[in-house]
Amino acid sequence: MPGSEFELDQKLPVGILGATGIVGQRMAALLEGHPWFELKVVGASNASVGKRYGNVKWRIDNPSFVPDAASRLEVVSCDLENFQNCAWVFSALDSSVAQEIEPRFQQAVIPIFTNSSAFRMDPTVPLIVPTANGLDFVKLLRTDPKGLLVANSNCTTSGIAVVLAAFVKAGLELDAVTIHSLQAVSGAGVSPGLSVMDIHDNVVPYISEEEPKIEEEIRKILGFDDLKVSASCNRVMVTDGHTVNLAVKFKSTLNKSLLVTKSKKALTDYSVGIKQLPTMPKTAIFLFDETTNDRPQPKLDRMREGGMCTSVGRLRECPVMDIKLTLLLHNTILGAAGSALLNAELAFSEGMIKA
Amino acid sequence: MPGSEFELDQKLPVGILGATGIVGQRMAALLEGHPWFELKVVGASNASVGKRYGNVKWRIDNPSFVPDAASRLEVVSCDLENFQNCAWVFSALDSSVAQEIEPRFQQAVIPIFTNSSAFRMDPTVPLIVPTANGLDFVKLLRTDPKGLLVANSNCTTSGIAVVLAAFVKAGLELDAVTIHSLQAVSGAGVSPGLSVMDIHDNVVPYISEEEPKIEEEIRKILGFDDLKVSASCNRVMVTDGHTVNLAVKFKSTLNKSLLVTKSKKALTDYSVGIKQLPTMPKTAIFLFDETTNDRPQPKLDRMREGGMCTSVGRLRECPVMDIKLTLLLHNTILGAAGSALLNAELAFSEGMIKA
Amino acid sequence: MPGSEFELDQKLPVGILGATGIVGQRMAALLEGHPWFELKVVGASNASVGKRYGNVKWRIDNPSFVPDAASRLEVVSCDLENFQNCAWVFSALDSSVAQEIEPRFQQAVIPIFTNSSAFRMDPTVPLIVPTANGLDFVKLLRTDPKGLLVANSNCTTSGIAVVLAAFVKAGLELDAVTIHSLQAVSGAGVSPGLSVMDIHDNVVPYISEEEPKIEEEIRKILGFDDLKVSASCNRVMVTDGHTVNLAVKFKSTLNKSLLVTKSKKALTDYSVGIKQLPTMPKTAIFLFDETTNDRPQPKLDRMREGGMCTSVGRLRECPVMDIKLTLLLHNTILGAAGSALLNAELAFSEGMIKA
Amino acid sequence: MPGSEFELDQKLPVGILGATGIVGQRMAALLEGHPWFELKVVGASNASVGKRYGNVKWRIDNPSFVPDAASRLEVVSCDLENFQNCAWVFSALDSSVAQEIEPRFQQAVIPIFTNSSAFRMDPTVPLIVPTANGLDFVKLLRTDPKGLLVANSNCTTSGIAVVLAAFVKAGLELDAVTIHSLQAVSGAGVSPGLSVMDIHDNVVPYISEEEPKIEEEIRKILGFDDLKVSASCNRVMVTDGHTVNLAVKFKSTLNKSLLVTKSKKALTDYSVGIKQLPTMPKTAIFLFDETTNDRPQPKLDRMREGGMCTSVGRLRECPVMDIKLTLLLHNTILGAAGSALLNAELAFSEGMIKA
Repeated sequence: MPGSEFELDQKLPVGILGATGIVGQRMAALLEGHPWFELKVVGASNASVGKRYGNVKWRIDNPSFVPDAASRLEVVSCDLENFQNCAWVFSALDSSVAQEIEPRFQQAVIPIFTNSSAFRMDPTVPLIVPTANGLDFVKLLRTDPKGLLVANSNCTTSGIAVVLAAFVKAGLELDAVTIHSLQAVSGAGVSPGLSVMDIHDNVVPYISEEEPKIEEEIRKILGFDDLKVSASCNRVMVTDGHTVNLAVKFKSTLNKSLLVTKSKKALTDYSVGIKQLPTMPKTAIFLFDETTNDRPQPKLDRMREGGMCTSVGRLRECPVMDIKLTLLLHNTILGAAGSALLNAELAFSEGMIKA
Repeated sequence: MPGSEFELDQKLPVGILGATGIVGQRMAALLEGHPWFELKVVGASNASVGKRYGNVKWRIDNPSFVPDAASRLEVVSCDLENFQNCAWVFSALDSSVAQEIEPRFQQAVIPIFTNSSAFRMDPTVPLIVPTANGLDFVKLLRTDPKGLLVANSNCTTSGIAVVLAAFVKAGLELDAVTIHSLQAVSGAGVSPGLSVMDIHDNVVPYISEEEPKIEEEIRKILGFDDLKVSASCNRVMVTDGHTVNLAVKFKSTLNKSLLVTKSKKALTDYSVGIKQLPTMPKTAIFLFDETTNDRPQPKLDRMREGGMCTSVGRLRECPVMDIKLTLLLHNTILGAAGSALLNAELAFSEGMIKA
Repeated sequence: MPGSEFELDQKLPVGILGATGIVGQRMAALLEGHPWFELKVVGASNASVGKRYGNVKWRIDNPSFVPDAASRLEVVSCDLENFQNCAWVFSALDSSVAQEIEPRFQQAVIPIFTNSSAFRMDPTVPLIVPTANGLDFVKLLRTDPKGLLVANSNCTTSGIAVVLAAFVKAGLELDAVTIHSLQAVSGAGVSPGLSVMDIHDNVVPYISEEEPKIEEEIRKILGFDDLKVSASCNRVMVTDGHTVNLAVKFKSTLNKSLLVTKSKKALTDYSVGIKQLPTMPKTAIFLFDETTNDRPQPKLDRMREGGMCTSVGRLRECPVMDIKLTLLLHNTILGAAGSALLNAELAFSEGMIKA
Repeated sequence: MPGSEFELDQKLPVGILGATGIVGQRMAALLEGHPWFELKVVGASNASVGKRYGNVKWRIDNPSFVPDAASRLEVVSCDLENFQNCAWVFSALDSSVAQEIEPRFQQAVIPIFTNSSAFRMDPTVPLIVPTANGLDFVKLLRTDPKGLLVANSNCTTSGIAVVLAAFVKAGLELDAVTIHSLQAVSGAGVSPGLSVMDIHDNVVPYISEEEPKIEEEIRKILGFDDLKVSASCNRVMVTDGHTVNLAVKFKSTLNKSLLVTKSKKALTDYSVGIKQLPTMPKTAIFLFDETTNDRPQPKLDRMREGGMCTSVGRLRECPVMDIKLTLLLHNTILGAAGSALLNAELAFSEGMIKA
């Protein structure tokens, strides 16, 4: 593995809870050929138990094929006993199910890297977007590594957190943030997910529970309890890739022109500050320069750096806030499966989870 | 005609400049069966001159048929002489062409109701969204009716202006406004318009010249030179109907909860204050109540009141501004052809343009 | 009512079984303002019972609003007792449910006009596409009007049956027919219907049970037991309107050029042969002439004559069969709700169902 | 390179004529990292000359990034002198332009592998879909390798030719073939290509000049002048991947059930019969077995084997012809750029074009 000091005799066996949904399938796709981890157990609800994973309806189109090794696994229930031989599990469970199942794994001291929202706001659970606050996670691991249930954020939250973390790291203090999202349909899942009759030739200007999640998760990730955040979420007819119009007011007396310059520099200079890992993008943020005014676009930019990079464009003065920009993130990679995987790599590289 | 005092012996002959584009076709569709006006001349560029209007490629799908009477007209050039018998003309010309052609009609004292942006910001040209500042137009007509070149606004501007006018009318003073639009593809026209390869499965977070147009037009329509307006425009895969996430900060010391209540009342109580006219919607604003949280949607709401009504939903407190809401307008009806037509009805009903 | 000899003192009360699905909603929309019938009872499954019909999620977009009168009805269960005051009922039930419920109405001698496939192939049940074999229905009503359970056909079948009926009526004997359909998503319903993840940017070259239905229904409607019919069905990303590539081999020794001429004449000359009725299109078939080579198209042609007309274009020689053409029908109007309604009008106008 | 005996000291310099369109961009994408060839010259029309290739608007989304090396090239005109150092050129020119430019390269003895239709039916030009009649090309190269202008087929033709070639190779003689295509929008190009207003929520049942091209190209490729072929082409809202419903009548007295069995075996057993080459798929045809009834689908199957494999499903008896099936091909890879590239590899591996 380039950039890593690890050489493993044998890959670590891992499992997925909720392996048949879109995020679970993404996890399986990302684990294909992973240098450290090997997918050994795929758990799902009773409807799928007993099927070969390769015969489950595949829902993502890039890649559009079930990973070869995973395709031969038999789907099992999400009962604890099926995962006893896993070094840890990834969870792509729905929140209501996760609420019940995830604590059982915690009690059995099987670490969980979860995409579910069930425990994100629990003060004992680290909420980590690794390319935003991955360093906080490292510090936590080194001081207080007990009871590993690590949550990554809501999909939309992820890219926003990365950009805001870059501002904070560059010394730009945040006063208020407005978020207007145009979210892809893969975020709505597939069982049944969105009916085509409801979204084709349409925009749905509401996503259940999404706005408060984003607002509170951003505050928790950045560690600013009093940050003013306003999120307005819209569903649009895009398969993958959430577009966000972000505006920021800084605690600063600098003029807007200077704040634009400093913001751009903050994004360009940004580095997460943690070691290189298999799923870590080379640059966590890609900034389009002034010669390009119509990017990022989901169709063209979502797969940048394997879907782990947050793309930013149109950073300019805002007549109402200080600056505004458009950012794009892959909602099921950076925004879900990829961050869960990178969190696991981080924990493993810190020695906190073992072979 | 219900609600009107007019009885005409004969309908007034009118023409359309730029009749083959999407807005020109909308104008023709709206003039079908109009109680006062009759479409007699359809002008277009040389590529279409000589064709029967019914053989021009029809671009709108609701209605999806060329109006019967109009279909028999022969397309002529936009030369002045072809429109000499028109009481006035509607212009759906591209801005660059309008720049040249529209002044010729003014010089010939043929009134023009134009959707083009060429002269919108000219201080001598009234910029009228009739369901927002129609009353200003009436006052102007009564005091200074000379040289009629009347512009309606940019499509996106229209619905926003209506909602803000309602707030102003209710005594809510505006301090700052943020606009995030999700705009339909019909707004990009068809010659060639957007290539499907560029917008399918995609969002384009930029529309050329759109943001400054919206910002300055809103100030002109409302008459507030110093209103802070920030617009961010996105193109999405919707045929017709622009969705706008709008947030407003008022000049007010009231708490946000009270401002929400007052804002809702302002929208519910709003009336334009002008007489009933054929193309005037019964209510200029439709407000979804609290029991509905996922509307307005373009697919379901764009044709409300024939496309002349601005639909509003999700009016709620904004953690950063005071209130936020989602509005929807039909971009080629309220936002273009319908407002041009209603402006003409208004001018005619005031006696300022004659048979 | 133009073209009808009826004058009713009072409209006939009718009900809909399965009123909340797409076809049920279409029925309600078509009954809005109907000159003879008045929708009085809307039945649905337990999930909707007790709701006001106006609060059920509306699924069609043209019109995009719940009919005003219907919106005030309360949804009831599909139990017989709720429909005792109806002159008859329309059924838009799923086949499995229809299998149980429809016989109860028959036993209670409440006529049913059903879009369900449950009893279509039952030899005692007339299978009627009124603009194809409506005259057969009239003859049947006059001779053997007992036990009215009248089925209209599968959506795709309808337009094909109309075109083939025109050929038969013109004396062109059919030897073999091939059908290749590109079907709209509204045909898949909405509970849950097609997930957007499965059809966006995709074609699904299979529709469960559709091909044998079409093949056998065409034989039954035309009355030719030995007609060779091959159907291949595909789902495409269109809201409404099924496009069909149809090829026909005639029992004829005429050359193909002549068969093209005769086929065109057959379509142009076609009349159903029954009296004018409210939902009857003025022409059952619209044929594009040689000057148009890219029609019919669902977006532009589906609403022709209120969705009750079958549009045909590109009629030409086929190098393998004799002739080939493209036809288009509105799958939830001609192909479902509209034909059920027209069947009821036909039965009523023949006096076989009473006020 | 696995499976190849070649080891080159240095890669061969090649150029692309028409490098900015969709097919030209696909060629550039496929040449990225090619083991033998290196893209050195990108030619286009005057509108693009002088730009860096990386700044040309990128039109394909998988991959969605301009290949790194190619991105640094400067776009030049398609004049012969710019390509003098190329071992040969690939042409993605529009037919009308190709008509003029391609002969100049032939006269200058620079081999051309062209996707344009300009000379496909010229009897002196080999028309090669390498996974169908690649072996014919090899034979030709060994006997009569002069004046290399090699055309690959129309996109839709390609996958059909592969499947029919498999039948022929298995001894199943063809009598008649019917083709019904559902073609992706990338086939319409981008300058301007299809307007989104014309294809969104729509099917266009006609593609200019496509049907006769397919019919005559299939006869030429298979070498059967009298094969009856009927093609009916439809455009659908899919980015990439043409779906084809294919039916075949064989010259055979076997019953249909047996013909189905033999056809399946023909597809499963098929091998092209030429040596392994970099762009050659491991299997030219992938056949879904009976357990899968709704495949192939463009979204899930177009990228099989890098887009060079033809996927087939639903092979079954046809009540009118003998058998029918659904096939899928990637229209800009197997159907265009990929076949041109594989043709070049074939010619090179046979020593007919030199370093």
